[in-house]
Amino acid sequence: MPGSGSRAARPGPLSPMCPSTPLLEAETSLPHPGRHLCSWTRPGLGPSWASSVVFQSCRSCHLLFRAGAMVPHLVPRQLVRLFRWQVACARGASVQPRTWAAASRIPSLLSPWGAMGTSRLVCRSSSSTSPCAPEVVLTQERYPVTRLPFSVVSEEDLEAFERIIPGRVVTDPEVLEASNVDWLRTVRGGSKVLLRPRTSQEVAHILRYCHERNLAVNPQGGNTGMVGGSVPVFDEIILSTAQMNQVISFHSVSGTLVCQAGCVLEELSRYVEERGFVMPLDLGAKGSCHIGGNVATNAGGLRFLRYGSLHGTVLGLEVVLADGTILNCLTSLRKDNTGYDLKQLFIGSEGTLGVITAVSIQCPPKPTAVNVAFLGCPGFAEVLQTFSSCRGLLGEILSAYEFMDAECMRLVTHHLCLTSPVQESPFYVLIETSGSRAEHDAEKLSDFLEQVLSSGLVTDGTVATDQMKLKALWALRERISEALSQDGYVYKYDLSLPTERLYDLVPDLRARLGSRAKHVVGYGHLGDGNLHLNVTSEAFSPLLLDALEPYVYEWTARQRGSVSAEHGLGFRKRGVLSYSKPPEALRLMQQLKALLDPQGILNPYKTLPAQA
Amino acid sequence: MPGSGSRAARPGPLSPMCPSTPLLEAETSLPHPGRHLCSWTRPGLGPSWASSVVFQSCRSCHLLFRAGAMVPHLVPRQLVRLFRWQVACARGASVQPRTWAAASRIPSLLSPWGAMGTSRLVCRSSSSTSPCAPEVVLTQERYPVTRLPFSVVSEEDLEAFERIIPGRVVTDPEVLEASNVDWLRTVRGGSKVLLRPRTSQEVAHILRYCHERNLAVNPQGGNTGMVGGSVPVFDEIILSTAQMNQVISFHSVSGTLVCQAGCVLEELSRYVEERGFVMPLDLGAKGSCHIGGNVATNAGGLRFLRYGSLHGTVLGLEVVLADGTILNCLTSLRKDNTGYDLKQLFIGSEGTLGVITAVSIQCPPKPTAVNVAFLGCPGFAEVLQTFSSCRGLLGEILSAYEFMDAECMRLVTHHLCLTSPVQESPFYVLIETSGSRAEHDAEKLSDFLEQVLSSGLVTDGTVATDQMKLKALWALRERISEALSQDGYVYKYDLSLPTERLYDLVPDLRARLGSRAKHVVGYGHLGDGNLHLNVTSEAFSPLLLDALEPYVYEWTARQRGSVSAEHGLGFRKRGVLSYSKPPEALRLMQQLKALLDPQGILNPYKTLPAQA
Repeated sequence: MPGSGSRAARPGPLSPMCPSTPLLEAETSLPHPGRHLCSWTRPGLGPSWASSVVFQSCRSCHLLFRAGAMVPHLVPRQLVRLFRWQVACARGASVQPRTWAAASRIPSLLSPWGAMGTSRLVCRSSSSTSPCAPEVVLTQERYPVTRLPFSVVSEEDLEAFERIIPGRVVTDPEVLEASNVDWLRTVRGGSKVLLRPRTSQEVAHILRYCHERNLAVNPQGGNTGMVGGSVPVFDEIILSTAQMNQVISFHSVSGTLVCQAGCVLEELSRYVEERGFVMPLDLGAKGSCHIGGNVATNAGGLRFLRYGSLHGTVLGLEVVLADGTILNCLTSLRKDNTGYDLKQLFIGSEGTLGVITAVSIQCPPKPTAVNVAFLGCPGFAEVLQTFSSCRGLLGEILSAYEFMDAECMRLVTHHLCLTSPVQESPFYVLIETSGSRAEHDAEKLSDFLEQVLSSGLVTDGTVATDQMKLKALWALRERISEALSQDGYVYKYDLSLPTERLYDLVPDLRARLGSRAKHVVGYGHLGDGNLHLNVTSEAFSPLLLDALEPYVYEWTARQRGSVSAEHGLGFRKRGVLSYSKPPEALRLMQQLKALLDPQGILNPYKTLPAQA
Repeated sequence: MPGSGSRAARPGPLSPMCPSTPLLEAETSLPHPGRHLCSWTRPGLGPSWASSVVFQSCRSCHLLFRAGAMVPHLVPRQLVRLFRWQVACARGASVQPRTWAAASRIPSLLSPWGAMGTSRLVCRSSSSTSPCAPEVVLTQERYPVTRLPFSVVSEEDLEAFERIIPGRVVTDPEVLEASNVDWLRTVRGGSKVLLRPRTSQEVAHILRYCHERNLAVNPQGGNTGMVGGSVPVFDEIILSTAQMNQVISFHSVSGTLVCQAGCVLEELSRYVEERGFVMPLDLGAKGSCHIGGNVATNAGGLRFLRYGSLHGTVLGLEVVLADGTILNCLTSLRKDNTGYDLKQLFIGSEGTLGVITAVSIQCPPKPTAVNVAFLGCPGFAEVLQTFSSCRGLLGEILSAYEFMDAECMRLVTHHLCLTSPVQESPFYVLIETSGSRAEHDAEKLSDFLEQVLSSGLVTDGTVATDQMKLKALWALRERISEALSQDGYVYKYDLSLPTERLYDLVPDLRARLGSRAKHVVGYGHLGDGNLHLNVTSEAFSPLLLDALEPYVYEWTARQRGSVSAEHGLGFRKRGVLSYSKPPEALRLMQQLKALLDPQGILNPYKTLPAQA
C-alpha cells in the first residue's frame, strides 16, 4: 500500500452535502480530488468547536462537501490568541510581550485549509479564485514509459473478481478517477477497475488469480504519497485497502495494536489515545493515510525523532505475496529472533514485494504533558545551535525539532491566511516536548528558553500547552506543503543530508535559478537530518526542471545524502535510486523483486529503475 | 558474525601474566576458555579502583591472566555498602532502614566473577573447587548432523590465504581450540584454520576464494553467543573479526558512530561516552562481544526497553556477500527511503547471508542522571503491577525493568558470593532510570517508590545513583547466567511471551520435573516480555532433556510466543524455528538463503533447519 506516506495535511474522507447528489463513499466520491481547499464551518451544530461540522467547497465545481475528519484543525479566533510566552530574561534578550500580531486581521475562523467564515473563500491567494485546474496528463503521455506485457482485464476477469468480492468491484469511471490520479496531480493512470477486498483471504484470492492471469496490480492505501507510487501508470488493477479497516486487537498493558492495513492513521491515533497510548508515527496526512501504506512507504513524519523508524516499531506484518501466498508474520512480540526478520523486507518496499494486509505495531504510552515552542532564529547556524542546546536541556522529553525558513512562513500566511505568532525572522523552529510530568517539563523548557534567548540564538518565541494552541502552532509547519501547492507548480525534493549542511542547498538554488523560480523554500525535520526542498513556478517548465535535475541529486550524492529521505521513490523518483545506492545494492534489490514477484505484477514501474 | 549475542558477564580479552608464557592475542590465548572464573585484584597499581588491574586464575590450569576489560565490574567493599534507601512512608509499609545485611561477611573485594581477596578462590560453591571440566564433545559426535559436501582445506588453500592476509592465518591447534568451542562449552567444531582479516577488502578476497573453492566459512565475532552459532560444526574455516576493530568516524552532533565489525562493545561504549553519548545496546557480554556479532544476532540486552531494536538503531551496514561482493550500505543517515532497506536482511541473520564488516549506528545522548532501584516483590502479580505503576510514574526516564526470582538470588549469592541488598523475597525487580535532570528523576522515582511501597506491591528496596553501586546492583541481575553455569549442566531457554503469562512456565516446570532438576529459575527483561528460563542438573541428562523438549517449545507456541527472543537459533536451536514461524515464512527464508549464498558456504548448519 504505497501512497500513505508523509505529506502535508489533507482533508479526511468527504461526502457530498447537496441532497440532490447521491452519497458516495470516501474519497472516490470527490469529483475533483485535491481541489477541496476552501472551507467554512457551520457553528452551533455541536456542543463545542471540537464537534462542529466543517464544510468545504470544491474549487473546481463549487459543490459543498462535509469534511468528517478535519475537526482537530479547527481554530476559533479567540483561541488563536496564543498564550504569549514572556520570559523573565535578565540578560538582555530584547523580547517584548505581545499577542499574535495579526490576530485582529484574521477572520472569525481558521479552517483546516485556511479559509473562513462563509461558504466562499476570501483569501489573499490568487490561486484561490483560479478556475478549475486542467485535467492531469496521463502518465504514459507525459513520461517516457512503456507498458509491460501484462494481460488486459477482460469481462471474464471482472466476473471472476465479482465472485471473489461480490459488490465490491468498481468500474464506474467517475469513481475510478480519484484513484487514478495522485493527490499532487502529477501522475494519472488509466485503470478500469478498482477492487475493495475486506479480508486477507480475499486479497490472497485476488492476487492468486492475477498471478495466474498475468494481470498487473496497483495496491492503494489512502493515496497520499508524494512520488506517484500509489496510482496506476497504465491500466493496472487498483487494489484498495479502504475496506480493510478493522482493529484486530489492542493489548492495554503492552500497548501493542494489531489492525488491518486500511485503518486510517488518525482513527488509530484516536483509538489508542483513548486507551492511554499514542501511535509511534504522526504525519500531516493522518486524516487520510492508511497504516498499511505508512508501513509500505516506511513513513517518517513528525514523531520519528522520539520513537524512531517503523523498522523498529512495527512488530509484525501479514503480507500477501504476488502469488497469493499469505505470509503471516503478525506477531505481537517485542523480541523474536527466530530466523530472518522477513517483515523488514516489506517495510518501505512500496507494495512492490507484497501487499501488506495487517500490521502489529508497538504504541508508546501517551505523554501526559505536551508543550510546543515556536521560535524565531536569526540564522541557520543558530537553528543548529538551538538544536544542540535543546537536546542537552530537554533531553528525553524532546519529541520534535522542526524548522522552516522565512519563505515558508510567507507562503502559509499568504495562501492559507495563517498568522505568524512571532516576529518575522529568517528561520523558525518548532520544538515539541512530550513527558510524563508537566511541572518537570515546564521547568526544563523554561531553562532551555532562557538559555537560547539570553545567548541570542533565539530572538522571539511563543509556547503553547493547550491542545488547540498546539495544533495552531503545528499547522504552521504541517501546512507548508499545502501552501506550496497553491503557489503554483511544485518541484519537490525530500533529502537526507548531514545536519550541518542541511540548508546549504536552498540559497545555492536561489542563486542558480534566479527569477526562473517563483519560490525556493526549505523546511523539514531537522532533528532527523531531513530537508524538504521545494521550488515553485507559475506552471510546469521543462527548462526549470533541467536546471534542478540532476543538479539537486548530484549535490546530495556529493554529501553522501539520500535523494529520498522519507517519501520513497514510487514512480517519479525511481530513476534516481543510483544517486544514493551502489550498483551492488541495486542488483540485490532487483534479485529480491524477481524472487518475490517473478512476473513483476505488483506495483510495476515503481521503486526500482526500469531494467535495460 | 554470530556469537556476540546477549549473555551474562564474561571477562574481556585476557593475556597471560606469567613471564614464561608467551603473550598471545586476546581470547585465542586462553588454554581453557570459559574456565577463568576466579579473580583477584592487585590494589594500588592504579590511582583508583577504576584503573586497578584485575588478575584471574584459570580453574583448569591455575595460570594467572590479566583481565584488561573487566575494570567496570570492580566493587571494593567500602562501596558495596550501598546507600540504603529509606522511604518516609507514612502509610504503613514496614520497611526498616538497614545496610546490606551481608556486607560484613563479604571479603575485601568483589571481583567481576564474584571471587575475592587473594589469587585463590574461597567460595561456597562446590563447583568452585571442582577439577578441570571434561573436554567438550565434538558437535558431530553429540548431535545428529551430517557434513555437507564442501571442499576440505588444503595446503594450497592455506598458501592462498597467507597471500591474502600475510601472517594472519592461524593453524596452531591450541590457539584454534578457543575458537572451536563455544563459551557455554556445549558445542565443539574441528576447524583447522582461523583467518584474521583487517579490512573489508581482505574479507571479500577470502570469501571470493572460498566461494570458488566451495570452502565453508564460520564468521566469528567475540564468540559469546548462546546457541552455538559462532563456532564451526565440522571443519569450517573460522573468519574472525577480531582485528577489524577500528572506529571509522563519529559525528559529535548527531551521535552517529561508524566502526568496523570487530570493535568490542564495551570499548565502543567507552568511546562514545567520552563524547557525550551511549551505545543503544548493552549486554553482560559487552567486554568481549563484537558490534558486528551484536548486529548479526540482533542482540537485545539491557537497553532494549529504552532504545529499541537494532533494526531501528542501526543506520547502515557494510556486508561482504558469499561470493565476495562488498555491499556498501554504510550510510550515516537517519532516514533513507531509496529502495529496499537491504541492511535489515543481515540484522539477525547470524552470519548465514553475509559477513558484516562495518556498522553505522545511532547513539543516543548520554543521560546525565542514572538511578537503579532494586526491589523485593511478594509475588509475580505484584511484579507486573509494579511495572504498570513505574511506566506511568517514571514515564520517559524508565530505561530498564528486569526481574529475577528467589532461586536466581540464591544462585548468585551461593556461587558468586554476591550479597542481596534487600530482604529475601519471592521476586526481585531492578529498575533503571536514565534522564537529563537528576532532581526531576529523583522526584519521579521517589513518588513511584512511595506508591509501590504504600500499596504493598514492593516490600523492600534499595536505590543507587553512584556508578559503582549501580554496577553492584546490576551485577545481581547480569551474573545470573554465570552463577547457573557454576550450578551444573544448564538447559537454557530464551522465550518471548505475553507479559501476563511470562512466569507461568517456571512453576509449571518445577512441578513437572520434580527432583530431576536441580534448579528451575526464571528471570529476564520483563519490560520486553522476555523470559530467560533455565534448568540445571548435576550433569547432562537425556531424560531430563526429553521432559523439557518439546514441552517448553509447545507451551510457548500455544501462547503465540517466540522460542528465541534474543539469542537467535544458531546451531542448537535451528530445529525449533517452526514453533514460532509458519511454513510459508520458513520457505521464504530458505529462498533468501539460496539467493544470497547459493552454495551455502556461510555459517552452514545454522539458523535454518536442515533441509530434507
